[in-house]
Amino acid sequence: MDYLLYYSPGAASMAVHWMLLEMGIPFDTHLVDINAGNQRNPDYLRLNPSGRVPTLVVDGTPRHESAALLMLLAEQHPEAALAPETGSADRAAWLELMIYLANTLLPAMRDWFYADIDGDPAGAEAVQALARRRIEEACELLNAHLADGRDYLVGSKLTTADFLAVMLMRWTRNMPRPALGWPHLARYIRRLRALPSFVDLNAREGLTEWRNQDD
Amino acid sequence: MDYLLYYSPGAASMAVHWMLLEMGIPFDTHLVDINAGNQRNPDYLRLNPSGRVPTLVVDGTPRHESAALLMLLAEQHPEAALAPETGSADRAAWLELMIYLANTLLPAMRDWFYADIDGDPAGAEAVQALARRRIEEACELLNAHLADGRDYLVGSKLTTADFLAVMLMRWTRNMPRPALGWPHLARYIRRLRALPSFVDLNAREGLTEWRNQDD
Ligand SMILES: N[C@@H](CCC(=O)N[C@@H](CS)C(=O)NCC(=O)O)C(=O)O
Ligand SMILES: N[C@@H](CCC(=O)N[C@@H](CS)C(=O)NCC(=O)O)C(=O)O
Repeated sequence: MDYLLYYSPGAASMAVHWMLLEMGIPFDTHLVDINAGNQRNPDYLRLNPSGRVPTLVVDGTPRHESAALLMLLAEQHPEAALAPETGSADRAAWLELMIYLANTLLPAMRDWFYADIDGDPAGAEAVQALARRRIEEACELLNAHLADGRDYLVGSKLTTADFLAVMLMRWTRNMPRPALGWPHLARYIRRLRALPSFVDLNAREGLTEWRNQDD
Repeated sequence: MDYLLYYSPGAASMAVHWMLLEMGIPFDTHLVDINAGNQRNPDYLRLNPSGRVPTLVVDGTPRHESAALLMLLAEQHPEAALAPETGSADRAAWLELMIYLANTLLPAMRDWFYADIDGDPAGAEAVQALARRRIEEACELLNAHLADGRDYLVGSKLTTADFLAVMLMRWTRNMPRPALGWPHLARYIRRLRALPSFVDLNAREGLTEWRNQDD
């Protein structure tokens, strides 16, 4: 498998970038600076007509949607064991959580950060208010799920759900109620941020916020 | 595998119900009338604390999220071949489309139908306006994807993505721009609605709208 990740620092590409590093497999990266608007360059739009990151070019074919890319990588690299095996007791829980994160938190985040771009700026405040409510509800739910002291979201092992969840939690850092304010979520986040792959990820993306040493 | 589906006619349970019928495997159903508010009965909330349908009880364990349930059923029943095989060329496209439908159309539909319940009713109009824009964008994109005359969304075979997409398209029937207004989407929908499993599904759920004979 030949992988080329189009990413922007700290964006939705981050979970995929993290997983590639955690697996320790070879891959290339290409920076798309979304603050500079480079996701709308014609060359990039040919790879991803929606003008979003990430795009992962897999053996020459561009693929999209961060949650789908995590699931694809898990399937292609069973030796990394970053998803419960098909038929195992944890598998159904993993599928449910991946979809929950993808269809609750991820779109609410899109609303929070892009309400005025995706929709009418006049309605942005209302869209963001609902997004905030949903994000806080999801933090509440994840916090309750972690209240038994577990280290990972599914079973007792690191899975793709952790890459996705921690990326999403990072995006709350400047919101009214950052995820680190929930005690079980905070413990979980701190533990995952200590992974060497997360430290490496931040260094490679040039990120100097929301690392364990930063708070 | 022992399956018990909690469903409400025409709700997000419909894709799962359809898939169970298409596979021709044994399962039980339990009606949760969401118009009567029965999703908030304490007995149901024990199975699904979010008070939503569907819930699929799999060998005694309640599982949620329609898209995840479709993926789980596809894994558990490889003989039904309702998802491309792991490692196949269509697999990545299928994962991407399942996630796209789950994190774009499904949450936009939630916004369209539940803006005033999930959030502040004063902001509902703004939330719905953005939802409508996203739903129409998704119809546009699916229509373009089907413009080559293909019968199914992924590859040349029926997959879980078709159950999910057609259910979502059905929900547009009373919206300002129903999905049947896009020509390739209309052809696709009519073909899938002709499946005996879809006819059976409507009969079992007592639905008499948006069948091929109804328009
Ligand atoms: N559902 C997509 C969402 C991707 C997305 O919204 N990415 C944002 C960055 S976090 C982006 O590319 N924004 C630039 C833009 O929309 O112009 C995924 O999970 O991959
Ligand atoms: N993401 C969930 C959404 C489920 C959902 O929103 N179901 C609606 C019916 S389409 C429901 O249960 N509504 C009742 C309520 O929220 O009170 C899924 O795909 O299963």
